[in-house]
Amino acid sequence: MQQSSLPFETRIQALTDRILADYGNERVIDRLDMFAQPDRLVIEALIEKLFRLVFPGYYRDYTYRIYNPKNNLSALIEDVAFHLNRQIGIALRGSGQVVEQGIEQAAEDLTAAFLERLPEIRAYVETDLQAAYDGDPAAANKAEVIIAYPGLHAITVNRLAHALYQLNVPLIPRIMTEIAHSRSGIDIHPGAQIGRYFFIDHGTGIVVGETTVIGDYVKLYQGVTLGALSTRGGQNLRGKRRHPTIEDNVTIYAGASILGGDTIIGHDSVIGSNVFITHPIAPGTRVSVKNQELMFKSGRGYVLQPENPENDPARIM
Amino acid sequence: MQQSSLPFETRIQALTDRILADYGNERVIDRLDMFAQPDRLVIEALIEKLFRLVFPGYYRDYTYRIYNPKNNLSALIEDVAFHLNRQIGIALRGSGQVVEQGIEQAAEDLTAAFLERLPEIRAYVETDLQAAYDGDPAAANKAEVIIAYPGLHAITVNRLAHALYQLNVPLIPRIMTEIAHSRSGIDIHPGAQIGRYFFIDHGTGIVVGETTVIGDYVKLYQGVTLGALSTRGGQNLRGKRRHPTIEDNVTIYAGASILGGDTIIGHDSVIGSNVFITHPIAPGTRVSVKNQELMFKSGRGYVLQPENPENDPARIM
Amino acid sequence: MQQSSLPFETRIQALTDRILADYGNERVIDRLDMFAQPDRLVIEALIEKLFRLVFPGYYRDYTYRIYNPKNNLSALIEDVAFHLNRQIGIALRGSGQVVEQGIEQAAEDLTAAFLERLPEIRAYVETDLQAAYDGDPAAANKAEVIIAYPGLHAITVNRLAHALYQLNVPLIPRIMTEIAHSRSGIDIHPGAQIGRYFFIDHGTGIVVGETTVIGDYVKLYQGVTLGALSTRGGQNLRGKRRHPTIEDNVTIYAGASILGGDTIIGHDSVIGSNVFITHPIAPGTRVSVKNQELMFKSGRGYVLQPENPENDPARIM
Repeated sequence: MQQSSLPFETRIQALTDRILADYGNERVIDRLDMFAQPDRLVIEALIEKLFRLVFPGYYRDYTYRIYNPKNNLSALIEDVAFHLNRQIGIALRGSGQVVEQGIEQAAEDLTAAFLERLPEIRAYVETDLQAAYDGDPAAANKAEVIIAYPGLHAITVNRLAHALYQLNVPLIPRIMTEIAHSRSGIDIHPGAQIGRYFFIDHGTGIVVGETTVIGDYVKLYQGVTLGALSTRGGQNLRGKRRHPTIEDNVTIYAGASILGGDTIIGHDSVIGSNVFITHPIAPGTRVSVKNQELMFKSGRGYVLQPENPENDPARIM
Repeated sequence: MQQSSLPFETRIQALTDRILADYGNERVIDRLDMFAQPDRLVIEALIEKLFRLVFPGYYRDYTYRIYNPKNNLSALIEDVAFHLNRQIGIALRGSGQVVEQGIEQAAEDLTAAFLERLPEIRAYVETDLQAAYDGDPAAANKAEVIIAYPGLHAITVNRLAHALYQLNVPLIPRIMTEIAHSRSGIDIHPGAQIGRYFFIDHGTGIVVGETTVIGDYVKLYQGVTLGALSTRGGQNLRGKRRHPTIEDNVTIYAGASILGGDTIIGHDSVIGSNVFITHPIAPGTRVSVKNQELMFKSGRGYVLQPENPENDPARIM
Repeated sequence: MQQSSLPFETRIQALTDRILADYGNERVIDRLDMFAQPDRLVIEALIEKLFRLVFPGYYRDYTYRIYNPKNNLSALIEDVAFHLNRQIGIALRGSGQVVEQGIEQAAEDLTAAFLERLPEIRAYVETDLQAAYDGDPAAANKAEVIIAYPGLHAITVNRLAHALYQLNVPLIPRIMTEIAHSRSGIDIHPGAQIGRYFFIDHGTGIVVGETTVIGDYVKLYQGVTLGALSTRGGQNLRGKRRHPTIEDNVTIYAGASILGGDTIIGHDSVIGSNVFITHPIAPGTRVSVKNQELMFKSGRGYVLQPENPENDPARIM
């Protein structure tokens, strides 16, 4: 490290020149002429506003006093339409997927189409709320689930983002699900298709890939991966079905991994903790890891654990 | 997706009517007449202020110049009392657990009872700080642990939330621990009882359930679950003992799962990485996964790994 | 819980005296005379500003209209120099590692030395961006990777923090990486040395320890630990090599743990999901868990799964 008797300002000026020169290397990260990108902070604010639309009695704007909550909600819908329209326009321009003169119309059509789907999204979220309350003995009431549960937060963001993904809106759906991932540790790609009554317990470490299909009444616990087999194909695999299908009424316990686009978990199955699956499972099957062989030591050397009938998944799961 | 030549405002107005009509379905998520709910942003601010009370030399309010830090702390205590009292009142009204005319007195009593416990909470946190510093060779000094360690952050929030949980304050304790979960990836239910000198290293993915009991000098690493066996009983299991007991001086390595209300890990035990336990362990036991059988391939086909004496938990753990 | 007819203010005053008295216990957490500590909010803002310097076309300050982005960048560099210099001064004073009269000069030298390294850091980050785009079929384009991928976020923060760590700046590097950990669930110590083309997919639960050394073209998936064997030595192990070496072109799948300072993973190796390794692996080796024995139940009792050739790591990985 160099010591210097030059004034700090002079040194910083020299460094500024050096850093500015570094932008002349014509790499991807050197591009200064980018179109504007969707603004993560605006999208975070949109998520808050959409939560107020999905759960109007639970997330309120306390900045002004409301006598008729429907007046407030009307204003909120207008606000969401305005900002979402603007961000979609920015995303379309950046993506190049619509010609410049079509962007304004396309953004309006996409914004309207998204808002049109809000009642349907809310109908799904009501089922998720029910599933979370039914599934967790620690839930005191449904308000607690709405306000404090990371799993309901993540699936609600995902249902909103998935609607935009289906409309082929670029970038914004992924920013939305990454905001939910950052908050909850739950990483669900906006492309994943998820049925009704979806329940995530705890959730940290969950990964659900882009082409996953999930039925109704499915439960996932923390650390579950619904992922791809090798992705060494990289960009050649874009758009291909790479992630599993989970049929109705399946429960998948903590740390299980289910991989591959041909891997179907049949309805009414239960997948035990830490199970690693890369092939289809018939409906109604309980799968568990054969008793983990444990070693115990307590001064007299190792004792191998006998097979432990308690690991019966019927009991554990 | 519909294209439309109508002005955007007209389309949004029609969509607004459609969305407002959707609130008429009498579902849980349609309730507009809710009592106010505790405000997550106010509770986040309360956590910051409580951290300034717990660690007064390390978290300061730099917005104004303080000559006598005790003056500042007095003002801070008043501020915490005011806001906490208010949030507790809101939570009590929402829960229905106190009749309307008793809420003001109950909120004041609960706020005072919580603040009364602050010295005791601080005494526990000092032991957690010592445990983190002693346990992590990467810790340069205790200030670093206080300011930067997610494990100390999570246990401090938990000790504060647990005091409110013991006082039967609704909702607020869970909001507090979910804020810590979101920040740290560490999901400790406010109901968990945790002894002194508690150390969490790294921490992402840790789950500690509502009825867990943990003794003194316990260490947990990332990805550890202290959880329930099947919760298919759902709401019927509310209030029942579902989570394990961890006695004094137990270390639990990364990814281990310990499940069930009858599962007691005896004092001075060491539970190895990825061990899955659903039955009691005698005091002083080292438990590890019997050597994982690995396959190695390097062009000449698979070779099964011989049992690897290096997996001796005495060495690994 | 005590009920009281005293006015709330009177009760709070008594509690204030009790809490203030608690600061008289001369414990670490009772110190009120601390030097100021680096301010986490300022460091969060510095990270945002440094991201605008690393990716100038993608993260912009939209608060004012820019005609020539280079003017904006010059102002931003000055601003970063000013605030970083100040935080480094605070950190040096708190650490006691420089005598008071040397702090101003030392902070300026360290700030200048850090900014000097920015072009080199950017050169590494460009390779990380390429690796992420090449490695993930879900990535629509590089802008999406820059704006939305938690793995690129975490490695970029880490490269910045590592430069400060190498300059022996106290505390600030660790605060930076903990901010990234909180946002992404990816816990990389600022001491870790990481080569070019580093790709983290999903990332939640990853732990990379202080003395880890990673080569070029390495990929990590969610839940991977590059950690220490027993740290029961605690502070006696400070500064010792405790974490593994990962050579070039190694891929490590989800949930694998690689532990110990003598554990070298030879170049061009592939480590399968959930593998647990505490000894060196020769170059070019594929390591996978021998087929997990699973139990299946579907009404007719348990069936042990035969060895499953599909677990061939050549296919899975």
